[in-house]
Amino acid sequence: MGNKVLPKPLMGIIPPLVTPLLDSDTLDTAGFQKLINHVIDGGVHGIFVLGTTGEAPSLSYRLRKEVIKRSCEFAGGRVPVLVGISDTSFVESVNLCTYSAECGADAVVLAPPFYFPAGQAELLEYLQHLVPKLALPLFLYNMPTHTKLVFEPSTVRAAADIPGIIGLKDSSANMVYFHKLQLLFKERADFSLLVGPEELLAETLLLGGHGGINGGANLWPSLYVSIYNAAQKRDLDTVMKLHEKVIQVSSSVYSVGKYSSSYLKGLKCGLSLLNICSDFMAEPFHKFRAEERESIRKHLTSLGILK
Amino acid sequence: MGNKVLPKPLMGIIPPLVTPLLDSDTLDTAGFQKLINHVIDGGVHGIFVLGTTGEAPSLSYRLRKEVIKRSCEFAGGRVPVLVGISDTSFVESVNLCTYSAECGADAVVLAPPFYFPAGQAELLEYLQHLVPKLALPLFLYNMPTHTKLVFEPSTVRAAADIPGIIGLKDSSANMVYFHKLQLLFKERADFSLLVGPEELLAETLLLGGHGGINGGANLWPSLYVSIYNAAQKRDLDTVMKLHEKVIQVSSSVYSVGKYSSSYLKGLKCGLSLLNICSDFMAEPFHKFRAEERESIRKHLTSLGILK
Amino acid sequence: MGNKVLPKPLMGIIPPLVTPLLDSDTLDTAGFQKLINHVIDGGVHGIFVLGTTGEAPSLSYRLRKEVIKRSCEFAGGRVPVLVGISDTSFVESVNLCTYSAECGADAVVLAPPFYFPAGQAELLEYLQHLVPKLALPLFLYNMPTHTKLVFEPSTVRAAADIPGIIGLKDSSANMVYFHKLQLLFKERADFSLLVGPEELLAETLLLGGHGGINGGANLWPSLYVSIYNAAQKRDLDTVMKLHEKVIQVSSSVYSVGKYSSSYLKGLKCGLSLLNICSDFMAEPFHKFRAEERESIRKHLTSLGILK
Amino acid sequence: MGNKVLPKPLMGIIPPLVTPLLDSDTLDTAGFQKLINHVIDGGVHGIFVLGTTGEAPSLSYRLRKEVIKRSCEFAGGRVPVLVGISDTSFVESVNLCTYSAECGADAVVLAPPFYFPAGQAELLEYLQHLVPKLALPLFLYNMPTHTKLVFEPSTVRAAADIPGIIGLKDSSANMVYFHKLQLLFKERADFSLLVGPEELLAETLLLGGHGGINGGANLWPSLYVSIYNAAQKRDLDTVMKLHEKVIQVSSSVYSVGKYSSSYLKGLKCGLSLLNICSDFMAEPFHKFRAEERESIRKHLTSLGILK
Repeated sequence: MGNKVLPKPLMGIIPPLVTPLLDSDTLDTAGFQKLINHVIDGGVHGIFVLGTTGEAPSLSYRLRKEVIKRSCEFAGGRVPVLVGISDTSFVESVNLCTYSAECGADAVVLAPPFYFPAGQAELLEYLQHLVPKLALPLFLYNMPTHTKLVFEPSTVRAAADIPGIIGLKDSSANMVYFHKLQLLFKERADFSLLVGPEELLAETLLLGGHGGINGGANLWPSLYVSIYNAAQKRDLDTVMKLHEKVIQVSSSVYSVGKYSSSYLKGLKCGLSLLNICSDFMAEPFHKFRAEERESIRKHLTSLGILK
Repeated sequence: MGNKVLPKPLMGIIPPLVTPLLDSDTLDTAGFQKLINHVIDGGVHGIFVLGTTGEAPSLSYRLRKEVIKRSCEFAGGRVPVLVGISDTSFVESVNLCTYSAECGADAVVLAPPFYFPAGQAELLEYLQHLVPKLALPLFLYNMPTHTKLVFEPSTVRAAADIPGIIGLKDSSANMVYFHKLQLLFKERADFSLLVGPEELLAETLLLGGHGGINGGANLWPSLYVSIYNAAQKRDLDTVMKLHEKVIQVSSSVYSVGKYSSSYLKGLKCGLSLLNICSDFMAEPFHKFRAEERESIRKHLTSLGILK
Repeated sequence: MGNKVLPKPLMGIIPPLVTPLLDSDTLDTAGFQKLINHVIDGGVHGIFVLGTTGEAPSLSYRLRKEVIKRSCEFAGGRVPVLVGISDTSFVESVNLCTYSAECGADAVVLAPPFYFPAGQAELLEYLQHLVPKLALPLFLYNMPTHTKLVFEPSTVRAAADIPGIIGLKDSSANMVYFHKLQLLFKERADFSLLVGPEELLAETLLLGGHGGINGGANLWPSLYVSIYNAAQKRDLDTVMKLHEKVIQVSSSVYSVGKYSSSYLKGLKCGLSLLNICSDFMAEPFHKFRAEERESIRKHLTSLGILK
Repeated sequence: MGNKVLPKPLMGIIPPLVTPLLDSDTLDTAGFQKLINHVIDGGVHGIFVLGTTGEAPSLSYRLRKEVIKRSCEFAGGRVPVLVGISDTSFVESVNLCTYSAECGADAVVLAPPFYFPAGQAELLEYLQHLVPKLALPLFLYNMPTHTKLVFEPSTVRAAADIPGIIGLKDSSANMVYFHKLQLLFKERADFSLLVGPEELLAETLLLGGHGGINGGANLWPSLYVSIYNAAQKRDLDTVMKLHEKVIQVSSSVYSVGKYSSSYLKGLKCGLSLLNICSDFMAEPFHKFRAEERESIRKHLTSLGILK
């Protein structure tokens, strides 16, 4: 299990798994196993735990370690396991990576440290210090809404010369940024460029991106895998039709309730309605109450996800 | 000239024309005529004057009127003329529209009033007051970086029921936003959805958008028109190849100098190097000095735009 | 009337007058005269028309000129008249200043051009071009929430060496910024440093600032003048007591309704309740409806402004 | 040591201590003791460890615990010890508080969880869940530049009814916010309102605030204590004179280098030049190099801090 050689570039659909919880500090272990089987059965090409969708920053270190251990165990070598090690503390990021390697994970994923506003030169230096201490290959994670920092294209290009950095997940929702990276990495076909927001998966794949780390693939993995497959075949009509489904999911399941957490709440609520796992959420969030849950149920039914 | 019936939806490439200037308050009339001929010869489907690329907010009202008059005259009915009437003053927006109609323009384009931060309900009410006073059909213009305000998808959808609003130009560079609008307007095939940033033109067209209002089409109109034509034929390989050219333009010609005005300065400098028009810029900007101009020359040469 | 020598530094309370309107393009002339008499009777040291509080960017140029003419006429030389000439167009700013001088105004006030995001070097160059064309002395106006741009302290210090720039109004609500300016201008006792948000008037005056351009002084001029007078006498207890009244105004009259325009709507509504002038607002705003008006009435009564 | 009854409201100068480091994960223990003695000798009324100035988010949990233990030990009951427990993880915040109580600390300080953008209702609920689990009284910490979230005044007022919340540190640099809180807490004289940015200490104290948690008090504790004492005596002239010194520190020692981390780097560099403790910084930062260090030396000499 694990420690396989990752394909370079890593391609396909890698769902950023939610972390099923029974309470703030207890993993819903059975639900987690069910979820992992659900997405692997749906054809995904890897799994990513402890990302934003996994509520990683809200979890205790103890629980994060449990998630790492369990995900490697439940994946059982069927697909690569990527682990989020983003942290404000350099030392804790290293610790999480070391533990991930021990558990048999395949790679780690890192957003910029998200408390202090560092400059680009500082971010590059940070990576130069960090990567040699990591026991696994690293994907960068561009996530400016939550970290306040962008990995500028030139920083990414410079960082990619550090051995061990093998790709980037971009959750900026800014395709201008993504296309500029694609141009910068034109001669580096081994470097994975993956997109976060699923609403941008179709265009990412049509225009040469390698895949998506898309939250909706928790819920409906085969939809995203089908887009990937259709894009591989250059079947534009199918991509377009499935893309519209994705936008329907986004405009309904992720658009209930207020605040910017609707995506995460809708996703967990949906998984609970599908009887896959618990929808408990770690502070500062709260699972949807009855009325919002009813809205999600209707959306899922109307989308055909729930019979 | 003008007052033709606009196609619904308006489709294709409509360059947001730069305003060639001899000094802060003097139009480079000859250059403007040359520019309009250049883009029409390149196959564009319309022209848009007095947008952000046209530095409209920096121009005096007298000069804005001259630009309107001349653009209608120089276009001579060959393609539709769209006129930007964005203003912080409701009354001045109406005045500019009235004058545009008198000159024979075909439509107007309006961003939210950009000084006071209005709410969405206020923006909708603003449009409800404004549109009945407009003598021409209206495109909304979503441009949050410069106006601080977003036309939220639900506001656009509600506004689209006001007779006279016929489309939207989105310069947010946020394709999640654009795709949500596409879904909302699925049953309104007559409503134009056009994209501003040219880096997003390929995906916009591949996934059902109607066209682009792309600055680069001042410089190299046939490139953008070719993407449009290839996308119409669903020729994915050609779209991809041309898309890469667009990203090269963006990563070179628009990336010289500092500040966020590099795009505008690079564009005007390029047009001057092509001997189309003057590169004078209205305050608060300044045309590129010798060193930056030399960089632009190299980029244009390397792109094959300048022999 | 007008063209008097302004005191250097200009000190005291200079209300940024609201623009009383009968409709979008019609001045409530009688109300405007009443308002000017009201504030002068309250002891203010000058008036400032066509600022943010005056809704200047929302008014037509014709109307702005009428406001300039009438304010000089109604002030009748009793206090200096400052005129806002902030505009996205350099040429229009110059035109407004020329007209202000013709009407007998004493100085003009300018925020950065607020559509294009200029850099600091560009802002300085902008002022270097502009000031020689101005017929009146100039106050800079730092207003980042509305203009997106800050006049950085070093830019202000450099600009202050251009003859004709005589002070700054800071509406950033950032007293760290204000204190840094005070230090930079320690040897330039002639340069006025005035504060916008009235909630910061007390501390500004106690720590060496010269005065306030405070909206509340439309409504209750003597309150702000009394703070100024108490601060001049170093009467800390009185300043503190009156300061608390100011915070009460701010926490009640400016806090009705939603959106960031509550201040402006509350102020105009209050003036209407005092029978001073009309509360019509230019687009994109709307005057308070009955329910909100009732809240304002209660607040004014409870503050003792309305009997 | 510790567990004394805190004065209510807590008043005075409470320096947010830097964390002296030998490397990323090693405390400069001797330096830390020296620093604590330095500030207590300077007359401070408490110490605050593991705040932003303490680089807490950049430190490992192991090291944070060491800092807690040592600070209580070195303070030795001479002044109250406040401990920052801000964390993205609810569980880890509780853990840090429990450990702080065991070590004899007097109170804890908490900013909003800073990864996910929570709404105000969620923040309030977060506090309602958290406070009952805390073994020590709690100060809220408003720090929007780093956390992206504001504790809105109405949220603070509601939270203050939860037994155990005893005050707030405001680092927003927005005195309008601070004054609105003061009005809301007019009848709650036991609730401490403390200001973060030292540039705002003078006005905070003159207008009724209780004290400051000011970084400069690491370097020059007696300056800030003197302002506090002068303000207590209502000695406005002395406050003003000392306030100007504070602005000089801020405009020189905190203004070397680029990025927004100049404050922290300048402070640690200054402490090293005073031979108090090491200037090593945790990632993502780096201590000042020779040239910047030389600038800091000159500034300290010119201020009279370094002979």
